[in-house]
Amino acid sequence: MDDGQIQSKEPPPGRPCVLGVDPGLNITGYGLLEIAGSAITIREAGIVRTKAHTSLEARLVEIHQGIQEIIRGFEPTAIAVEQLFSHYQRPRTAILMGHARGVICLAAAEAKLPVHHYAATQVKKMLTGSGRASKSQVQLAVCHEFRLATVPSPPDVADALAIALCHIHFQRRAEKLS
Amino acid sequence: MDDGQIQSKEPPPGRPCVLGVDPGLNITGYGLLEIAGSAITIREAGIVRTKAHTSLEARLVEIHQGIQEIIRGFEPTAIAVEQLFSHYQRPRTAILMGHARGVICLAAAEAKLPVHHYAATQVKKMLTGSGRASKSQVQLAVCHEFRLATVPSPPDVADALAIALCHIHFQRRAEKLS
Repeated sequence: MDDGQIQSKEPPPGRPCVLGVDPGLNITGYGLLEIAGSAITIREAGIVRTKAHTSLEARLVEIHQGIQEIIRGFEPTAIAVEQLFSHYQRPRTAILMGHARGVICLAAAEAKLPVHHYAATQVKKMLTGSGRASKSQVQLAVCHEFRLATVPSPPDVADALAIALCHIHFQRRAEKLS
Repeated sequence: MDDGQIQSKEPPPGRPCVLGVDPGLNITGYGLLEIAGSAITIREAGIVRTKAHTSLEARLVEIHQGIQEIIRGFEPTAIAVEQLFSHYQRPRTAILMGHARGVICLAAAEAKLPVHHYAATQVKKMLTGSGRASKSQVQLAVCHEFRLATVPSPPDVADALAIALCHIHFQRRAEKLS
């Protein structure tokens, strides 16, 4: 947890809270959304940034510890993580991101948190209506949804919030259908 | 650590020992090679097999714990892991293997073990003279190197021993050149 943070003034405990994560070896975005009835509010959002010029394994330790701290500090009730299978066009990057995603899923499982996986196209479609929306369209949709005055930066924060929001929407849809 | 185990009768402690790992979500092969002067012997080899029909994150916990147990039990001085960048032709598998590789590298870093990465082609070339050698050629080369009566099974065990051996050879070559 470091720069790029958005934090609510009064974080009320005990409400269902979803942790959205956008995994990356350099920057992992995270966003905690709290559910109170029909209202969804941002509890906290930010990034875990790993030190440049360090080994792959040192970065994995930083990401794992960063996610562990967030889970311990905010006690989310579920975690939603972006799938990597849409990154086929850049396989080397996707494989490296797979390493980051591995230690994120591990931290969640160690805390007995259910993990939900969403493809980037699912997230984009839910937020903007199009699975091919650009990064900036997703950012604007997140701004609009939470009535934010400025676009969350870096974009990994907006992506993490979008993934958490996607999970809440899919869960509500499933509850309506059941 | 379960089936597919090869174990030496008298494991002498205190000698440099390299842990080779062939990462996989279903089966992760491992092999511990001990160095005593010019002699290289198998201290132990086997597999970490994850439960079928369990979630990705549950499997990652099993792999992480399995590697942690091996490190604690045998105290290797270095770890050598197969690179995944030669698996471009099957990106989905490579991305999933990246998750397993992530938690293996994490376990090594948590134990302050140096991690060395080798491409499958490097390992094959060192063992057989050809970077395009088949799985069975690698297995036979491992058998020949350690004078094993039978081929290690499953093949992941032979692959892990081959990676550890590759690291020792590259290290010796570097020492000669320095």
